Amino acid sequence: MKVEVISIGDELLLGQTINTNAAWLGKQLSLIGSEVIRVNTISDTKDSILDSLNGVSKEASCVILTGGLGPTKDDITKQVLSEFFDSELVLHDLTLEKVTSFFKAREAQMLDVNTHQAYVPSSCIVLNNNYGTAPGMWFDKDDQVFISLPGVPYEMKGIFMDEIVHRIKDRFNLSSIYHKTLLTQGIGESFLAEKLVKWETNIRNKGFGLAYLPSPGIVKLRITSKNGIKDKDQINGFFKEIEERFPEAFFAYGELSLPEVTGNLLKKNKKTLGTVESCTSGMLANKITSAAGSSDYFMGSLLTYSNRLKTDLLRVSKNSIQKFGAVSEEVAIEMAKNGREILDVDYCISTTGIAGPGGATDTKPVGLVWVGLATKDQVITRKFNFGDNRERNMLRTALSSLNLLRYFILTENKN
Amino acid sequence: MKVEVISIGDELLLGQTINTNAAWLGKQLSLIGSEVIRVNTISDTKDSILDSLNGVSKEASCVILTGGLGPTKDDITKQVLSEFFDSELVLHDLTLEKVTSFFKAREAQMLDVNTHQAYVPSSCIVLNNNYGTAPGMWFDKDDQVFISLPGVPYEMKGIFMDEIVHRIKDRFNLSSIYHKTLLTQGIGESFLAEKLVKWETNIRNKGFGLAYLPSPGIVKLRITSKNGIKDKDQINGFFKEIEERFPEAFFAYGELSLPEVTGNLLKKNKKTLGTVESCTSGMLANKITSAAGSSDYFMGSLLTYSNRLKTDLLRVSKNSIQKFGAVSEEVAIEMAKNGREILDVDYCISTTGIAGPGGATDTKPVGLVWVGLATKDQVITRKFNFGDNRERNMLRTALSSLNLLRYFILTENKN
Repeated sequence: MKVEVISIGDELLLGQTINTNAAWLGKQLSLIGSEVIRVNTISDTKDSILDSLNGVSKEASCVILTGGLGPTKDDITKQVLSEFFDSELVLHDLTLEKVTSFFKAREAQMLDVNTHQAYVPSSCIVLNNNYGTAPGMWFDKDDQVFISLPGVPYEMKGIFMDEIVHRIKDRFNLSSIYHKTLLTQGIGESFLAEKLVKWETNIRNKGFGLAYLPSPGIVKLRITSKNGIKDKDQINGFFKEIEERFPEAFFAYGELSLPEVTGNLLKKNKKTLGTVESCTSGMLANKITSAAGSSDYFMGSLLTYSNRLKTDLLRVSKNSIQKFGAVSEEVAIEMAKNGREILDVDYCISTTGIAGPGGATDTKPVGLVWVGLATKDQVITRKFNFGDNRERNMLRTALSSLNLLRYFILTENKN
Repeated sequence: MKVEVISIGDELLLGQTINTNAAWLGKQLSLIGSEVIRVNTISDTKDSILDSLNGVSKEASCVILTGGLGPTKDDITKQVLSEFFDSELVLHDLTLEKVTSFFKAREAQMLDVNTHQAYVPSSCIVLNNNYGTAPGMWFDKDDQVFISLPGVPYEMKGIFMDEIVHRIKDRFNLSSIYHKTLLTQGIGESFLAEKLVKWETNIRNKGFGLAYLPSPGIVKLRITSKNGIKDKDQINGFFKEIEERFPEAFFAYGELSLPEVTGNLLKKNKKTLGTVESCTSGMLANKITSAAGSSDYFMGSLLTYSNRLKTDLLRVSKNSIQKFGAVSEEVAIEMAKNGREILDVDYCISTTGIAGPGGATDTKPVGLVWVGLATKDQVITRKFNFGDNRERNMLRTALSSLNLLRYFILTENKN
């Protein structure tokens, strides 16, 4: 089942807004077994919208429009759709009720333009919007379905999940798609792909879909079956092999984040965590607290960006810094160990590295990072070289050190 | 002068990659006075590319294709272009030399697929790629120009800036565009727009373009003139009014970031900075160190996420936390003051708030934030309410508190 997306809005063409809606729709539609074949991003004028509607690919059985449903001047999409479907704008009582109570709840004055939002083309099915005032619309024309949604991301996503997914599945008989995603940290996409050539061929030969979904520090592997849940065991079997071959890299299935997975392990084992950071300068602590409820196990951090604070506050010996440099295994060890005592936590992670662009020496390039993990009995260290992008260096250091902790807790509690 | 962008790549349709290239091109093209009228995002198959080339808008005098120029299977764009322009692939010696030395420098083996990158359609002008191995291409057909670029963002951007901007300006006579951007922090787009109705009308009536470019915590205002640099003084005059009406919000012109502007002030005045963070949990420190060279003035931080560390490490009195709560003006003051002493810095910023989703009470909603700024003589405080998105709360707290510091240094050194 093929879909064309029409994204409406001058702000997208001007680059003031990045078209994340289209990417989100692409992801969601591929998860239910349909496929976006084109995204047409256009201006919010009557002519552009009509042109794009008339030029829709004949292959597409479904067309999703986003944008141009606002209360003010961009209310153009609804009028063009009304014309395109030879329909008239009529008052939709339920929507008027919702808009009215929306403004009442906020003690705000309702204007004529707001009332106007309750008018919809008579030929459409109204899709309930629980997140704002502009309703979604569903049209049938010949063999194609046209769906119109507001451009505000959380409204668009809300209507799609609440009102569209089940309708599309019913209408296009997509109920048989099953997929599962495995998450890894610390292995590059191309390295993984090279190691998995045979595994991948086997999966594809058996008729399954496989996708690599990379982002800095993280690669997701998704296997898709068109036969539905009855392939579940077979997919679990494929993934079991990855779990066994890459036990340190594999950290979860589904949509969990590494901070959430690590946080759950800390909670389960009733352990506390702190960080002492130099090169990441708070990004590690910030990642840890991206998991809601992290105050249960995360106590806090010392960010010793300057060498003075490394010695004065964190009690790293001046001698070590002089002899080995601030970016060294020795200093990473002292930082983690002392940080664990000062913060009075079960685990303490230290980071020290050259984030760039400055700071490199003959023996220490930009991207060199030492990470330490202090536990009750020992300090484990890791050396990384993450290349020359400052922000990605920080991010990959944060994720790699969190994964080191995750794997340590896991194996410690197995033995 | 109107442009159509064709973005090629299944990863865009599947939502694995967000189409940031198109937004970037939209921004750059509007800066030189041209206008993107459509972005067509398509699959990397021969048929899709040919269809999109044949369906290009007649209004567009320039078509920019990105993607599909890689060394492996996605090398399809070049072949389709060759066919579309009735041309043949020929070896481009200079490109071959560059590809060869690219691999030599990395001591990597060059494969046949890499050699193939040096073949280009005979009818194109080759655009030099200083950032990778796939060259850009420029074609003239009838009254339209077609430009093909690799999809890797930094290669695409590099070729565009080095090879395309001046060619487009020459070819389409765009040399007369002049623009200037003013940056503000802490005022919402709609509030600003409402306050500036008259100012805006005046500017538009005089034939200038005006754009609001909002992102969380920051709004940029851009004025554009089609008469070139001779309108410079008049534009400076328009902006002078904003500087005077919103002195706290205005922080720079051009492309500087708030951390850079604040950092430059600290450097100039030879002052040091530290932070003590609760609700931002390192995001403020991380923002500060996003400016390269920040180690000159940024010393470090205490992230006292738990109340225990607030009292034990930062010496906030237990009594204050009990009486006023950790999220209170009193605690923000103690944090900033004690942090300034412990970190031994000239300025110390404290943050304490309810980032959400949990933690709200009857009197303290999610989004409530107290910020403190400790200086030699005093602690300045600010109260904010940033609403219910956890990450945006942290980001807006970080930017607002940095701007508080910036404005303090500025006014202190004026008096």
